[in-house]
Amino acid sequence: MHTFASDNNSGVHPLIMEAMIRANQGHVTGYGEDLYTAQAQENFKSLFKAEVEVFFVFTGTASNVLGLKAMTQPYQSILCADTAHIQTDECGAPERFTGAKLIPIPTPDGKLTPSLIKPHLHGINFVHHSQPKVVSITQCTEFGTVYTIQQIKELSDFVHQQGLFLHVDGARIANAAVFLGCSFRELITDTGVDVLSFGGTKNGMMFGEAIVFLNPVLSENFGYTRKQGMQLASKMRFISAQFNAYLENDLWKINAEKSNRMAKLLSREVKKLGVQVTHETEANSVYAILPQTVIPTLRKESFFYVWNEEISEVRWVCSWNTCEEDVYDFTEHLRRLMP
Amino acid sequence: MHTFASDNNSGVHPLIMEAMIRANQGHVTGYGEDLYTAQAQENFKSLFKAEVEVFFVFTGTASNVLGLKAMTQPYQSILCADTAHIQTDECGAPERFTGAKLIPIPTPDGKLTPSLIKPHLHGINFVHHSQPKVVSITQCTEFGTVYTIQQIKELSDFVHQQGLFLHVDGARIANAAVFLGCSFRELITDTGVDVLSFGGTKNGMMFGEAIVFLNPVLSENFGYTRKQGMQLASKMRFISAQFNAYLENDLWKINAEKSNRMAKLLSREVKKLGVQVTHETEANSVYAILPQTVIPTLRKESFFYVWNEEISEVRWVCSWNTCEEDVYDFTEHLRRLMP
Amino acid sequence: MHTFASDNNSGVHPLIMEAMIRANQGHVTGYGEDLYTAQAQENFKSLFKAEVEVFFVFTGTASNVLGLKAMTQPYQSILCADTAHIQTDECGAPERFTGAKLIPIPTPDGKLTPSLIKPHLHGINFVHHSQPKVVSITQCTEFGTVYTIQQIKELSDFVHQQGLFLHVDGARIANAAVFLGCSFRELITDTGVDVLSFGGTKNGMMFGEAIVFLNPVLSENFGYTRKQGMQLASKMRFISAQFNAYLENDLWKINAEKSNRMAKLLSREVKKLGVQVTHETEANSVYAILPQTVIPTLRKESFFYVWNEEISEVRWVCSWNTCEEDVYDFTEHLRRLMP
Amino acid sequence: MHTFASDNNSGVHPLIMEAMIRANQGHVTGYGEDLYTAQAQENFKSLFKAEVEVFFVFTGTASNVLGLKAMTQPYQSILCADTAHIQTDECGAPERFTGAKLIPIPTPDGKLTPSLIKPHLHGINFVHHSQPKVVSITQCTEFGTVYTIQQIKELSDFVHQQGLFLHVDGARIANAAVFLGCSFRELITDTGVDVLSFGGTKNGMMFGEAIVFLNPVLSENFGYTRKQGMQLASKMRFISAQFNAYLENDLWKINAEKSNRMAKLLSREVKKLGVQVTHETEANSVYAILPQTVIPTLRKESFFYVWNEEISEVRWVCSWNTCEEDVYDFTEHLRRLMP
Repeated sequence: MHTFASDNNSGVHPLIMEAMIRANQGHVTGYGEDLYTAQAQENFKSLFKAEVEVFFVFTGTASNVLGLKAMTQPYQSILCADTAHIQTDECGAPERFTGAKLIPIPTPDGKLTPSLIKPHLHGINFVHHSQPKVVSITQCTEFGTVYTIQQIKELSDFVHQQGLFLHVDGARIANAAVFLGCSFRELITDTGVDVLSFGGTKNGMMFGEAIVFLNPVLSENFGYTRKQGMQLASKMRFISAQFNAYLENDLWKINAEKSNRMAKLLSREVKKLGVQVTHETEANSVYAILPQTVIPTLRKESFFYVWNEEISEVRWVCSWNTCEEDVYDFTEHLRRLMP
Repeated sequence: MHTFASDNNSGVHPLIMEAMIRANQGHVTGYGEDLYTAQAQENFKSLFKAEVEVFFVFTGTASNVLGLKAMTQPYQSILCADTAHIQTDECGAPERFTGAKLIPIPTPDGKLTPSLIKPHLHGINFVHHSQPKVVSITQCTEFGTVYTIQQIKELSDFVHQQGLFLHVDGARIANAAVFLGCSFRELITDTGVDVLSFGGTKNGMMFGEAIVFLNPVLSENFGYTRKQGMQLASKMRFISAQFNAYLENDLWKINAEKSNRMAKLLSREVKKLGVQVTHETEANSVYAILPQTVIPTLRKESFFYVWNEEISEVRWVCSWNTCEEDVYDFTEHLRRLMP
Repeated sequence: MHTFASDNNSGVHPLIMEAMIRANQGHVTGYGEDLYTAQAQENFKSLFKAEVEVFFVFTGTASNVLGLKAMTQPYQSILCADTAHIQTDECGAPERFTGAKLIPIPTPDGKLTPSLIKPHLHGINFVHHSQPKVVSITQCTEFGTVYTIQQIKELSDFVHQQGLFLHVDGARIANAAVFLGCSFRELITDTGVDVLSFGGTKNGMMFGEAIVFLNPVLSENFGYTRKQGMQLASKMRFISAQFNAYLENDLWKINAEKSNRMAKLLSREVKKLGVQVTHETEANSVYAILPQTVIPTLRKESFFYVWNEEISEVRWVCSWNTCEEDVYDFTEHLRRLMP
Repeated sequence: MHTFASDNNSGVHPLIMEAMIRANQGHVTGYGEDLYTAQAQENFKSLFKAEVEVFFVFTGTASNVLGLKAMTQPYQSILCADTAHIQTDECGAPERFTGAKLIPIPTPDGKLTPSLIKPHLHGINFVHHSQPKVVSITQCTEFGTVYTIQQIKELSDFVHQQGLFLHVDGARIANAAVFLGCSFRELITDTGVDVLSFGGTKNGMMFGEAIVFLNPVLSENFGYTRKQGMQLASKMRFISAQFNAYLENDLWKINAEKSNRMAKLLSREVKKLGVQVTHETEANSVYAILPQTVIPTLRKESFFYVWNEEISEVRWVCSWNTCEEDVYDFTEHLRRLMP
């Protein structure tokens, strides 16, 4: 049964699985010195229309943390929304591996803006104070909202004027690009992002995330950082082959279009039941407030996470293989439970 | 073409691939809260005939490093052979993540003994000195030699008498068990090992290593350590399914028997050519001294690593899918190059 | 000239200097194995009327950071006011050395309360989330306000009910005790504080802070942590002798009474000039809003820190050797500059 | 009574104490923004005849560790003698704070040479291997031997050819300079040392060590590293004033001449008793093998450390205030105990 708990509950897209099977031919040098990986790097260059450096790792947390490590010294700080995955859901891995400080900033909708950031840019050159060095945003955000290209460009300009770097946690970057109807070049390269953590697992891959360095200075010696960070895959070809299938077949787009569309549908259907949707449903997740009494029974039928217990807010996420029937079944369950 | 560079150059065993395909059914809760993982944990309990706690991670380095973290405080030290993988080939990840100190001990054959360890157990209770807490051995060793059960038992008794823990880096533990013709219970449980890093990737899996806690105290709260260590897989079922196929079909044994046998054959064949084999070929790797002039051409035909440049020593590793023809082809190449 | 920049701008009290000179007799074993240190430990036991364990370090930052390290695992979090010294003025040393996460909480007056803390105690047993383990308060706070005994007791009860520990950053703890007119036993021991960072430098010592463990479990093996934290003094007697003079002569009280009284006076005098004092002047610092045009000239005459540039708020701190003349001189300067 | 346990058992030279008393005048800005510190920096520039950057810290361990941090990335390694203080006596602080790996190298006399280092410079550009970046030597060594200027020059040339940096642990650097009869310019500046940890505490100061950057690139942003390393003194003037007295009065030379001379005398006297001195007595410490039966009684009369229990080797260290009578008394005790 398909659930709305998370897009990582879905399995692997058949074309990806086929690519992995095809890659299982004979002996291949380990640790990324292989043709699959070389091809994957070319695919990323085409995707971003830039001489990006790309490093594959296993998890989204690693993708964020190692990317941030490449951008900071331990005496610096990383500014992010207080709802950012790096702040709330990585068990302190960013601080542990970078040694740097996270500065969480409250936002109305999960999005940072120059004016939200500005008050935190104090203590510059004051030796007692962690020096701001990176602004990290999540695209699409943890609330399923999407920064416009213009918003990212403004952030990027602001951040660079201040001598900082811009990092994008793109665990669901494909969903954002699809919502905006734009290319990765327009969304990332042309806006001036320095480092992007490009997600694959949540959108139909089995495992594998890419750290994409748009700013080439930051990738220097990064191979050692990845190894010391315990993220260098010995049988790398099985990550690279996935990314090749993902990019060469526009799977990133097809899958994200599907999950975005299903979220739109889900959002519309629950609103019909009088449910309050708390954030614009722009990408593949829906946030809603349910009557408290409804939640336990509904979760038993189909598991999902309560996002904010205090206000009885829940989160539903659609996947590349969520289908209309899943949505209608679920909303029918909900309908029967609603008071 | 099959090479002898490393057993991670081989691909994935067909039964493992099939298990991964079968696991790709519908939605499954992420992060290990699934039936594949529950079953894998039962499989490990059966394998070790003990109430072991098992945690899956992505890489061998992570398996060692996180296991060692669970056994140490930052002000303690970890004693190992100076040829140990944790000392030479993990880019400082053990020190970085544990904060502890590694004490490398020279050995004749990659094996530690109580008498080699003893001189390093000084400075006890001396606040200036990192306090010895773990002895880490590699089974089979980086030289392809294998500790006997008796040797591990003696080490274990010695280590525990001193108030230390025993860790086993078992990246190739299956090859050791096969060489000794024993069960994991005899090799690990009954000898008193505290924590085992149990390898899968090098012996026919795609990715996935297991940290096996024989000493239950050490696994307390380990889930957080794995998460903070960036090693918690979201689509965990695809590691667990591999281990289930690996253990339920005795694949660990079948694969290791094959690679051990091929190493034996390779060792015999190169000796016939007058090549000096530097360590007993007990598991699946062969160490040999070649004439310096031979190495570059031979590597071009079939890549392998030079182990010790100073003495012109090379390493060849056999895999689960190395076949006799590979061995004969390779030795024929070598024969033609030998002066 | 005496300034109001910080109480660390003051020098050393004559009785402390004399004690250091007296301690400079002959050879004494290093690293705390000496009679001065033994006596100092007894003095702390008397002061707190408890079997406290005490460890001396060099700086207030070290006192906080090493104390917090003793209370946490790297996957845990430390909750503090967003104005706390550990959050804003230690350049990320707490995160760097503990590996743990800091959770900054906004407060109206620098003081945490159970109801301010509660919303941050979520994600318990959720492996993705840093687990709350310590509440750290500053007494007196960075705004010169003082928790009442009752407030600390309530915090302590709440914190312990939640399975957390209570840490007190007591860089100016003497000023708090003097304001409350209570003993350290009443303020710390009887309220159930687990670990106190007890300041000396700001109140008339030359260098030296004490980490006081009320909860004996937490001090186990702490000697190694201090050494690895680079805070073990070789000529320890010169810290211990200072603390002996500080405690045996009630210097902590005499000095803090003086600086508190001077702050009261300063507060009263600037109010007479129409200056808005932003926090109750309970201990030895005064926070006030000045006309922006006044600040540069006044700082040139007598340096002090701007606390909050946005609202033109400044901080003045009185020392053990601030005298009434200093206050009147300073306010006279201010009077002449006021529009 | 004067002992031979360590030169940190001695107290503070009277001229240093006087300087501290004189520095205790009025209010002075904290954290090194004061005239004493400015003057101390000038004194260091004169001493080294170079535009050195100097940062004061509290302990020798901190001086080494923070200096090494400035020279390394976490994926690099630091090569040192296996008897080096950073390897054996800093409780893992170097690994903990730098994240880098230490590579201990056996030596006959505590001294590294290019040929001893060379075999450890392997795995270059191999991503699995911590990359060698620093050679750290101790001058004078932990065995009281002294590198000649020529030996340091050769090391420095070799190290720089390899793209590495040279660090000198100079906890007893004054004793080395005095033995060689040379200036710090000849010993350090002209030999090409990159960073020197310059000791003060063991040679008559109360507390205070200096990290001297000869290579200016390495000191960039070091102020933050010192603060995050918990080593920024608030009442800095009391370190700076000590160094001013130490350097302006040639106290470094006078004190070291005294302790070196006393060690020479002690060495000569114990040899007369038939005691084997195991290393050349070049600086202020003497290593000797005593009959095991003698040690406990002698230590009870005058404490000292056993250096190597296996061979019954002990260490005696002379201080700036050791006098001839101390030596004769001690050797007389020893004479009576000798079999």
